Amino acid sequence: MRALILAAGEGKRLYPLTKEKPKALVKVAGVPLVERVLYALKKVGIDEASIVVGCKGELIEKRIGESFSGMKIGYIKNHDWEKGNLYSLIAAKDRFRENFLLLMSDHLFDDRVISSLVAQELDSSIKLVIERRKGSEDDTGVLERNGRIEKIGKGLKESNCIDTGLFLCSPKFFSYAERAKRENKGEVADGVALAAEAEDAEIFDMAKIDAYVSGMRREVPPYWMDVDSKEEIKEAKRLLVENASKGASDFLAYYVHKPAENKIVYYLSETGITPNQVTIMVNVLAYFVTALFFTGHLLLASILIFLVGILDGLDGKLSRVKNQTTKLGSMEHSFDFLYECSWFIALALNLQIEGESLALTSRLSISPLVFSVFIILFVAFYRNCYDQFRKTAGKSLDDWGRFERVFRRIAGRRNLYNLPILAFVLLGMPIYSLVFVFFHSMLTMIVYGWRVCKHLREEDRKAAR
Amino acid sequence: MRALILAAGEGKRLYPLTKEKPKALVKVAGVPLVERVLYALKKVGIDEASIVVGCKGELIEKRIGESFSGMKIGYIKNHDWEKGNLYSLIAAKDRFRENFLLLMSDHLFDDRVISSLVAQELDSSIKLVIERRKGSEDDTGVLERNGRIEKIGKGLKESNCIDTGLFLCSPKFFSYAERAKRENKGEVADGVALAAEAEDAEIFDMAKIDAYVSGMRREVPPYWMDVDSKEEIKEAKRLLVENASKGASDFLAYYVHKPAENKIVYYLSETGITPNQVTIMVNVLAYFVTALFFTGHLLLASILIFLVGILDGLDGKLSRVKNQTTKLGSMEHSFDFLYECSWFIALALNLQIEGESLALTSRLSISPLVFSVFIILFVAFYRNCYDQFRKTAGKSLDDWGRFERVFRRIAGRRNLYNLPILAFVLLGMPIYSLVFVFFHSMLTMIVYGWRVCKHLREEDRKAAR
Repeated sequence: MRALILAAGEGKRLYPLTKEKPKALVKVAGVPLVERVLYALKKVGIDEASIVVGCKGELIEKRIGESFSGMKIGYIKNHDWEKGNLYSLIAAKDRFRENFLLLMSDHLFDDRVISSLVAQELDSSIKLVIERRKGSEDDTGVLERNGRIEKIGKGLKESNCIDTGLFLCSPKFFSYAERAKRENKGEVADGVALAAEAEDAEIFDMAKIDAYVSGMRREVPPYWMDVDSKEEIKEAKRLLVENASKGASDFLAYYVHKPAENKIVYYLSETGITPNQVTIMVNVLAYFVTALFFTGHLLLASILIFLVGILDGLDGKLSRVKNQTTKLGSMEHSFDFLYECSWFIALALNLQIEGESLALTSRLSISPLVFSVFIILFVAFYRNCYDQFRKTAGKSLDDWGRFERVFRRIAGRRNLYNLPILAFVLLGMPIYSLVFVFFHSMLTMIVYGWRVCKHLREEDRKAAR
Repeated sequence: MRALILAAGEGKRLYPLTKEKPKALVKVAGVPLVERVLYALKKVGIDEASIVVGCKGELIEKRIGESFSGMKIGYIKNHDWEKGNLYSLIAAKDRFRENFLLLMSDHLFDDRVISSLVAQELDSSIKLVIERRKGSEDDTGVLERNGRIEKIGKGLKESNCIDTGLFLCSPKFFSYAERAKRENKGEVADGVALAAEAEDAEIFDMAKIDAYVSGMRREVPPYWMDVDSKEEIKEAKRLLVENASKGASDFLAYYVHKPAENKIVYYLSETGITPNQVTIMVNVLAYFVTALFFTGHLLLASILIFLVGILDGLDGKLSRVKNQTTKLGSMEHSFDFLYECSWFIALALNLQIEGESLALTSRLSISPLVFSVFIILFVAFYRNCYDQFRKTAGKSLDDWGRFERVFRRIAGRRNLYNLPILAFVLLGMPIYSLVFVFFHSMLTMIVYGWRVCKHLREEDRKAAR
């Protein structure tokens, strides 16, 4: 399926951001609006898009070019862009002989909304995606009754949902657009109103989309947003950052990491720093901490691991906010594991060299290395269990059931291990940090191993019935 | 889509196996033929099948019941089963108003062949899957020219391909079947011949199916097989076992493990032992070996790890041969990792307690535990890299390119580590087995980390263009 993006607008209300560029090139979190639409289309599998340009259109052509991330891009000029977006649509009339996606370049769309719409049947000339809430005066309101569109229009008083600016269109819709033009109307919504009158328009309620995202360990409500003012740019940024946050598993993640990460990503997104660069910086810092542990600078190291913990969440979040998720980035967790383990080894080696050990009886004592070797084994095992479970069951173990949702709050993980490390270093008995993490990771390993086997066995039984 | 399975046959040539049951219930590697067809259909996503029964049909109904692994099963009686399978097809005439899959219960089918056929368009009354080779007298031969079926029939002399007994049918095909019946014919192939005459039949060449299977790390040619005699049952078993073998990575796997596993699975498949039971037995044995290492019975332990290595490959292979792959079974590798690491820890602890260490200078020596902690770290890291890469890139790293196909022969893995362990134990310097595995696993970690990052970066660049 091909897509048509209307990007002819000037964006007066965004002045002076739109002094030297069209609205479609205004950046939200470092990425121009029209590129955000293109990234979403790409993610959905659309491989060709036409962009209707008008005001300062040559700047869009120059920026995007004829190909964007493997998508073929064409341009259509609308000289009457000042008359309204209906004219942009009509300018594309001869290019579409089959059903197509119609999008506004100044709206942000969750790609799940687009992919759900693409999967829909089209039984009329146009299907518009609606959100079921009362809109503001700026929104195009829709009054829906029993699945039919009774009224549609900007600032419609009696509306019960909002036109999101995302449509599945048949070529037939152009005739309604032409009629609206003949009636001296200027908005796409006016064409929709005519189609609705002829009972030739449908709606798709975005609330129908499943909000759970396994990779995010939580429900992320599918979003859309109209970006018209500088306040809305900020709001959009906040929305993007919030949506890029994975489900927090523990109080530390919720009260410390998430807010800190969000704040940093909010500003970082405007810079040219890439997620991969962040990953490299975090790794450099992490191995510096390893060196500190090994050389006995335990207090400084135990404080810096908290910093690493916060910075470590930035790369993934930044990549999601800026549409820069890469395949290489998926390897980040493997490298995380490496530096995490290096800390335990470095700490154990340092204590070993210092001659420390845990005396059980006068004759038997356990060396720090024994704790670290088991910690690494346990951590590697439960991480592997966790990954394998998600792959096999299609859902994060953390979210499987009531028990899991409680256990995840205390399950062993890097950020939680930081607490006993700092605590026992402060108390002057660092070997107990290894002892503590040893038991914590062992508990986690046992619980994960048990739950994973239990749930998969149940799944197998269900499938066999 | 629904499926129709013809299972009315007696199976005379399989006597005495068919003395007390119909041909469809004859077992190949412990699983009745008709169940193999049902498992394949289930894997493809078919949720309803009708089985035409004739000779001793009540035994099939009793065995399969009204539901099989979540698939709804219906039965159709064919009292004229002795007249040929055309009569079985016609008996189902009133049950199919839409396109359906037609299968012979006494043929083994690779589920990939079925899924490829299901994805095909049907532009005529019937599409038959063919294999492009000269068949024997028992086969239904097809003479194909320019995509058209010129002739079809049992033992056809001038044939250039074989009818595999797998069809995509439209209800229209029943009229050809009826015509063939009126002409006193008895085989489905006779109906196909009439459809072909009317240019209303097509072929699908199974060679068109992509043979690469990422999970098997190799190309597994899609198969089908007609099982008519006791020799063919054995041949089918060999084929199933061979197809269940993953791509061997090293000479040990190729020359020792694979043949040994295949032989054991060949016999094991006839018993009631389940893959999960095998997994449990292997784990019990493995931890017995751990205890041997810890208590200093190094020679016995170093020999038994080879046995564990062979037995460890049985569960997966057995499950593939018997269609008993489970979600729980996917956790096997996590548990493998656990016992593998336990050996290194047990060996290191034993040596540590014995006071052994690797003296570098007169003042500096490295304790065995240091080696084991790094071995576990390296192994966990490269396994994680490997898994993550397959998930992200969709292909096994081992198969990515020329370098990988060479490196996999020497890459560190459990079975290869067994060799230096035994060697250095025999030489009376067991600590060197840890030193050797330390360097081997480190090399593997570095190479995997490097190649994975390199390839994913290239993929990202390609995608961005």
